[in-house]
Amino acid sequence: MKMIQIVLFFFALISFTTNAIDSDDFCVANLFLTSDTPSGYPCKSEKFVTADDFMYSSLAAAGNTANPFKVGLTSVNVSNLAGLNGHKLSAARIDIGINGSVPMHTHPDATELLIVIQGQITVGFITPTKLLVKILNPGDVWVFPIGLLHFQFNSGDGNAIAYAAFSSSNPSIHVISPLLFGNNLPTSTIQKTTLLDAAPIMMLKGVFGGSG
Amino acid sequence: MKMIQIVLFFFALISFTTNAIDSDDFCVANLFLTSDTPSGYPCKSEKFVTADDFMYSSLAAAGNTANPFKVGLTSVNVSNLAGLNGHKLSAARIDIGINGSVPMHTHPDATELLIVIQGQITVGFITPTKLLVKILNPGDVWVFPIGLLHFQFNSGDGNAIAYAAFSSSNPSIHVISPLLFGNNLPTSTIQKTTLLDAAPIMMLKGVFGGSG
Amino acid sequence: MKMIQIVLFFFALISFTTNAIDSDDFCVANLFLTSDTPSGYPCKSEKFVTADDFMYSSLAAAGNTANPFKVGLTSVNVSNLAGLNGHKLSAARIDIGINGSVPMHTHPDATELLIVIQGQITVGFITPTKLLVKILNPGDVWVFPIGLLHFQFNSGDGNAIAYAAFSSSNPSIHVISPLLFGNNLPTSTIQKTTLLDAAPIMMLKGVFGGSG
Amino acid sequence: MKMIQIVLFFFALISFTTNAIDSDDFCVANLFLTSDTPSGYPCKSEKFVTADDFMYSSLAAAGNTANPFKVGLTSVNVSNLAGLNGHKLSAARIDIGINGSVPMHTHPDATELLIVIQGQITVGFITPTKLLVKILNPGDVWVFPIGLLHFQFNSGDGNAIAYAAFSSSNPSIHVISPLLFGNNLPTSTIQKTTLLDAAPIMMLKGVFGGSG
Amino acid sequence: MKMIQIVLFFFALISFTTNAIDSDDFCVANLFLTSDTPSGYPCKSEKFVTADDFMYSSLAAAGNTANPFKVGLTSVNVSNLAGLNGHKLSAARIDIGINGSVPMHTHPDATELLIVIQGQITVGFITPTKLLVKILNPGDVWVFPIGLLHFQFNSGDGNAIAYAAFSSSNPSIHVISPLLFGNNLPTSTIQKTTLLDAAPIMMLKGVFGGSG
Amino acid sequence: MKMIQIVLFFFALISFTTNAIDSDDFCVANLFLTSDTPSGYPCKSEKFVTADDFMYSSLAAAGNTANPFKVGLTSVNVSNLAGLNGHKLSAARIDIGINGSVPMHTHPDATELLIVIQGQITVGFITPTKLLVKILNPGDVWVFPIGLLHFQFNSGDGNAIAYAAFSSSNPSIHVISPLLFGNNLPTSTIQKTTLLDAAPIMMLKGVFGGSG
Repeated sequence: MKMIQIVLFFFALISFTTNAIDSDDFCVANLFLTSDTPSGYPCKSEKFVTADDFMYSSLAAAGNTANPFKVGLTSVNVSNLAGLNGHKLSAARIDIGINGSVPMHTHPDATELLIVIQGQITVGFITPTKLLVKILNPGDVWVFPIGLLHFQFNSGDGNAIAYAAFSSSNPSIHVISPLLFGNNLPTSTIQKTTLLDAAPIMMLKGVFGGSG
Repeated sequence: MKMIQIVLFFFALISFTTNAIDSDDFCVANLFLTSDTPSGYPCKSEKFVTADDFMYSSLAAAGNTANPFKVGLTSVNVSNLAGLNGHKLSAARIDIGINGSVPMHTHPDATELLIVIQGQITVGFITPTKLLVKILNPGDVWVFPIGLLHFQFNSGDGNAIAYAAFSSSNPSIHVISPLLFGNNLPTSTIQKTTLLDAAPIMMLKGVFGGSG
Repeated sequence: MKMIQIVLFFFALISFTTNAIDSDDFCVANLFLTSDTPSGYPCKSEKFVTADDFMYSSLAAAGNTANPFKVGLTSVNVSNLAGLNGHKLSAARIDIGINGSVPMHTHPDATELLIVIQGQITVGFITPTKLLVKILNPGDVWVFPIGLLHFQFNSGDGNAIAYAAFSSSNPSIHVISPLLFGNNLPTSTIQKTTLLDAAPIMMLKGVFGGSG
Repeated sequence: MKMIQIVLFFFALISFTTNAIDSDDFCVANLFLTSDTPSGYPCKSEKFVTADDFMYSSLAAAGNTANPFKVGLTSVNVSNLAGLNGHKLSAARIDIGINGSVPMHTHPDATELLIVIQGQITVGFITPTKLLVKILNPGDVWVFPIGLLHFQFNSGDGNAIAYAAFSSSNPSIHVISPLLFGNNLPTSTIQKTTLLDAAPIMMLKGVFGGSG
Repeated sequence: MKMIQIVLFFFALISFTTNAIDSDDFCVANLFLTSDTPSGYPCKSEKFVTADDFMYSSLAAAGNTANPFKVGLTSVNVSNLAGLNGHKLSAARIDIGINGSVPMHTHPDATELLIVIQGQITVGFITPTKLLVKILNPGDVWVFPIGLLHFQFNSGDGNAIAYAAFSSSNPSIHVISPLLFGNNLPTSTIQKTTLLDAAPIMMLKGVFGGSG
Repeated sequence: MKMIQIVLFFFALISFTTNAIDSDDFCVANLFLTSDTPSGYPCKSEKFVTADDFMYSSLAAAGNTANPFKVGLTSVNVSNLAGLNGHKLSAARIDIGINGSVPMHTHPDATELLIVIQGQITVGFITPTKLLVKILNPGDVWVFPIGLLHFQFNSGDGNAIAYAAFSSSNPSIHVISPLLFGNNLPTSTIQKTTLLDAAPIMMLKGVFGGSG
């Protein structure tokens, strides 16, 4: 009888945090019915939340590197791991083939932490006053601060693998070359804002599918 | 006539902040039609907001302490005081009977400030490097930093009352014992992750309604 | 053929950030279908976003200063520049006629940065320990910290123009006199909470349309 | 022997969070050697932190109400409760004598939650579109959103007591009347920015010690 | 005598917010004695704060456009307007000569709001899925979201002037071309991470002072 | 000659962001001379920053699992990777031997994302309303929301390895058993706040080095 009292008490204690509304213990993204907000997706009702909402399966397979950069990217973010919603954290697997590279890019909304798993990767980022470059081997960890222009390339003699963590639940990757040459931004505009000549611009517009 | 001009002008000034959309002066929670977001509930339309949205009535009565811990909790959060939405602030009244206690728990999302109103309460929190404990009397104030394991117990000879403020509009209370023993987490899992023996685990699974 | 491969690769790279869900590159306010949240408006679907969402046209005309304060305010915030949503930034144009002023007010949710374009404006803000006042001329810049009581007045001999930037996408302007005298707050309440006599209160209730 | 191993292991586990540097479990303000930052005071070294850093003693006594407003304020913030540093939470005790009031004021940096302990207090806040007023009795709770002009007055027939919690570790109180009339802001400036006549301004400059 | 009482009372009220420590009304940067923190510079002691800490004088003069881009930039940030410290707001004046441009760049830490004052400026920003471009005339306002690649160029037939506001007290400007070509990043690295040929890289290394 | 002009111009452009003070591109922790703040460590002067500040070497070796839990933890945080300062991101390597476990614990200040590299790990977290448990295999990713009680154990037949990312630059690990039993918290206090009997408490005080 005493135990029953205790159990009832703990139902009461629990209800301290679960009145008519859900707790703030987590806010699993409801991706399907409603749109994003500046702080993330609206929360799925707590009663429909399951362990599957907190799991992504799986990063075990290599990304497809059958492309000119020989780079494969597999991203785990709020779009495929809804439990990340509101948490400013996500991950990715990066595969880089021999002589391959992750091209010059920025993440406008996330710092990136890179852990090399296999092979040798040369990393670097550039600010107006600094060019910081390092050769990383398995187990080495590197930080790319938010918004800075950076790159990685396979400087070893085999395939390279790394995992990345980001300080955003849905980081963007903005690759400079397709941003500049992959749309219909006029060649004259690119010229005057980069000092590149028309010839390499038109060449790269061809490569990245741009026009104009 | 001059006054009419002034009045019209102030209607214009006011409309500086109240175009088609509501101001950001407050965002009273619309709890009924829409779900939570990582930053809180969507705002009720300003035209339906009244003083009742900013008032909770009342913490005057003692919480029910007729349970084994002799503790009564009454919480004032965004679920019953919708004006707290988006403000990272809420409150509670805590009644602790003679020999009663608020069991070991954490608030994953809030710092707690405690003001003792009546009686004597011994408080403490525990970190990997510190055990900080104090005896509080009426008028004493104490801080439990966010996420830390803490407890309170009545160390006086009469009923104790305290008010608490939290740095969240909807703080959770995670009591360690029912978290560990009040569900179907297997005894073997609890054993290997706490080093408790099977016997006390099974005893407390009985107490807190757990199985497995 | 090689180029086609590269193009396809970049479509793949781009899709790294554009799965089923929108990127977080921007969150243009959807003002029409849904209500605000504590972090801003829900995002318009990325496919409907155009350049118009990031442009306001235009602040070229002077605001209407045909009122007793001889002040014209034109605000550019998330209500008329939806691309500001979630960005904690907005702007306004302020026109002050000869002898005109921006009355004593606060912005509860924004710091203000003022750039004088034309004329001479005297600015000041007040805290419990400081009264800071300066005369500004064209090109001068001033900061009003968030929440502080402040004012501006035209201290030159021609019309004055300034642009303001705010650290909020939807700043409020709370002008002290109409807050105190423009509603039905009882005269006795204003008396006991300001120490003003009844006569000036009733006079200003007349000016600002208050009663009671 | 096995226990010794376990103990050593837990020393190792604990050192996981306590390398050369302190943990982030708390950041008790070091108020004496160094200046504030926008996020709060630098942290006192963890090894000098004691339970006294998290306790304030005591709010038991009434504040001094022997003044014209008959209001006594006792504040518990990071200056006298250093454990609040970085936590965006603090408290105060408010005593209001018969016919007394807390004058019109704003908190530029904090939302306030008020719990009435004794007596009857009428509360209210004012926005450009709303005047929200309520009569509170013991146990009633009220929210004053950040930055809004508000007031309280004793509307009962005995002394009133309330506790307040704030969403800042060091909230400011900006009382409108001394801000306007308690310094050397010229009467002509106050006139043109409030529309008050010179006579009540000069009267209140006398009351609040202002000149000019 | 009554007035003296009131005055003394308000000294007491004021001291409510000014105990041994400074208020949080502002945190003017102490730039000289101490280093930055992730939230900004340590605060200058309140007793040394003057109106000059909140003023920058002056943006009235055009920036120097005697350079190949014909662009002059004058920045007002925490380094020359210390009152901006902790406020996530700053400003700049931009002068663009005939045929001049602000080259392709990002602000890793700030959203930018642009107000055109004189002339015609074509603006644009680029994301993986959008190229958004507009022609702006005096009074037009534009938003460049944080971290996105963007540009401006003078598309009129006279000098152009704009003011910019930023959501940072110390925004960086990262111009793509000097980042890529203005240091000793090896040509082979630039080639493999941009797909540019060696020839234009070496040409631009010459332009921007790079080597390697 | 034209190139020299351009180069000089870009030195000027760069100096736009590097006046007397450092940029905000990064804030590498100065761990040695100054204490932490609520937002992180003061910044090392930009001129002394090198690539080493952004690299940790190395996580390649297994942590020491020669302890009763057979778990080895290697943490990469702001204490050994100073470039993480201010970025709310860090990492760890977790090795779990056969039958080993990561005991019941919370991170009061960080969400954790786990990537399994080798072996099979069963993970789970507990809230007042949910027990969510999953078996993870290599490549699987899991999220433990901030502040929630959670555990991991090796459920495979070989050693297990995982990498973890945290949404804090210096996450704490609070293991429940040593928090409760590894200090001099009186047995009677533990009893009344957990409902455990004295016998298992005293047994575990022996295990974890507690007294009292």
